[in-house]
Amino acid sequence: MKVSFQGEPGAYSEQAVFNYFGQVETVPCESFDTMFESVLSGKSDAALAPIENSLAGSIHQNYDLLLRHDLHIVGEYLLRVRHCLIAMPGAKKEEIKKAISHPQALGQCAGYLRNLGIKSEQVYDTAGSVKMLKESGAMDVAAIASKRAAELYGMQILEEGIEDNPENYTRFLAIQRELIIPAGDAKTSIVFTLKNAPGSLFKAMSVFALRDLDLTKIESRPLQGKPWEYLFYIDFIGSMYDEPSKRALDHLAEYALMLRVLGSYPRFKG
Amino acid sequence: MKVSFQGEPGAYSEQAVFNYFGQVETVPCESFDTMFESVLSGKSDAALAPIENSLAGSIHQNYDLLLRHDLHIVGEYLLRVRHCLIAMPGAKKEEIKKAISHPQALGQCAGYLRNLGIKSEQVYDTAGSVKMLKESGAMDVAAIASKRAAELYGMQILEEGIEDNPENYTRFLAIQRELIIPAGDAKTSIVFTLKNAPGSLFKAMSVFALRDLDLTKIESRPLQGKPWEYLFYIDFIGSMYDEPSKRALDHLAEYALMLRVLGSYPRFKG
Repeated sequence: MKVSFQGEPGAYSEQAVFNYFGQVETVPCESFDTMFESVLSGKSDAALAPIENSLAGSIHQNYDLLLRHDLHIVGEYLLRVRHCLIAMPGAKKEEIKKAISHPQALGQCAGYLRNLGIKSEQVYDTAGSVKMLKESGAMDVAAIASKRAAELYGMQILEEGIEDNPENYTRFLAIQRELIIPAGDAKTSIVFTLKNAPGSLFKAMSVFALRDLDLTKIESRPLQGKPWEYLFYIDFIGSMYDEPSKRALDHLAEYALMLRVLGSYPRFKG
Repeated sequence: MKVSFQGEPGAYSEQAVFNYFGQVETVPCESFDTMFESVLSGKSDAALAPIENSLAGSIHQNYDLLLRHDLHIVGEYLLRVRHCLIAMPGAKKEEIKKAISHPQALGQCAGYLRNLGIKSEQVYDTAGSVKMLKESGAMDVAAIASKRAAELYGMQILEEGIEDNPENYTRFLAIQRELIIPAGDAKTSIVFTLKNAPGSLFKAMSVFALRDLDLTKIESRPLQGKPWEYLFYIDFIGSMYDEPSKRALDHLAEYALMLRVLGSYPRFKG
């Protein structure tokens, strides 16, 4: 099986692929666009797309790509982002003077680096910082990246879990060409638009409330260039093949200007 | 007046500060944390914090900082992100072979670069790419950044608005130490948590629907480490000093486990 992810080998997304799919062949993609295209064209069998991060928020671009392409969500995965302090084999922690990584990773470890009195320097990518460090061979520099990146480049992990806020999770969606019918505990993701009128979202939500369907995500997104029009993303507990969900979606379709079910899939169990 | 922003001089956030506040003194901050601290400590009078981007989504970190600190939203601004192809003075567009910028900016101009047959190379920052280009003096390299960055470094703009998707907007919030009472057309931003039960969000929303108060944003955010607990962000049209809004907030406080009004402020007029 071939699974696409966005980023360089050793990226957090690649680690998520191995955790979720097991020992598959990974296909690194430059952008989210090329990642979706690789599944559509059959170059790979599936993709694992980050959809929201607990600190950074939803990744709208991947919602756009789900809407644009005829692909289906078949699963979800929650990755705890654990940054590692990575150095050359034989390097010593007390001799590290500078850390290099992507600005976001450096920012998430700012307190840790300050405590150790280590300066930081921004580079474009987490996994890329490990590659750069290996090429330079510097013994007083560390990179901040995933455990997988350290292993890939044969580097030494000086410390694991160095992020200041441990509540750093990224939710990924597994995407394939074929629909699945989930067995057991399921979640459904939908996107819709509504007429702009006060209370219209309230009415739309009544179709779930009346059937005691539990929402796990709701998000509005303004459509730029179309003032007062919004896209809504909702995730709810249930499968679109079950009667209450089927009826709720049927009733929502009465109100909604556009409604698209992105997929019903097994819920992630941590 | 001194206004803080996150990023380097020439960043899009700095451009937004000048558009919104006029000719003020800008204070570049390394991180969102230091940006908030600069306002709290009185080092600056205000900050302009990005809160959501039409392609990338909400910036949860700034919501967290609003919750953590006793600061108030006093205004909003919508910046259309227009990327520029920037080169050394005298450089010619047809001789450009490589573009450097932050991965997000390169990704947003991927189609344009492909059409021109220009390769791309990632660096850590948009404004930083202009600085690097100036230092190198290369005549066959272009940077992708804001117009302001080009002006700041005395560089040449080869083309403006080179992004593939023109619907690229960032919404900023102006933040100060003092509350304001907005005159005229206002918006209010709130954050709250609810008991986890099916339909609880539906009940919470009824306080707005019953008073015909128009929501312009709703977003749920799972609280990691606390399964089944959510933070909700809502923006609605109205000022917390007006009777219907005051009553809606009063009733919401009956249901909500936590409710915080982040501010009422004049609506942005494009």
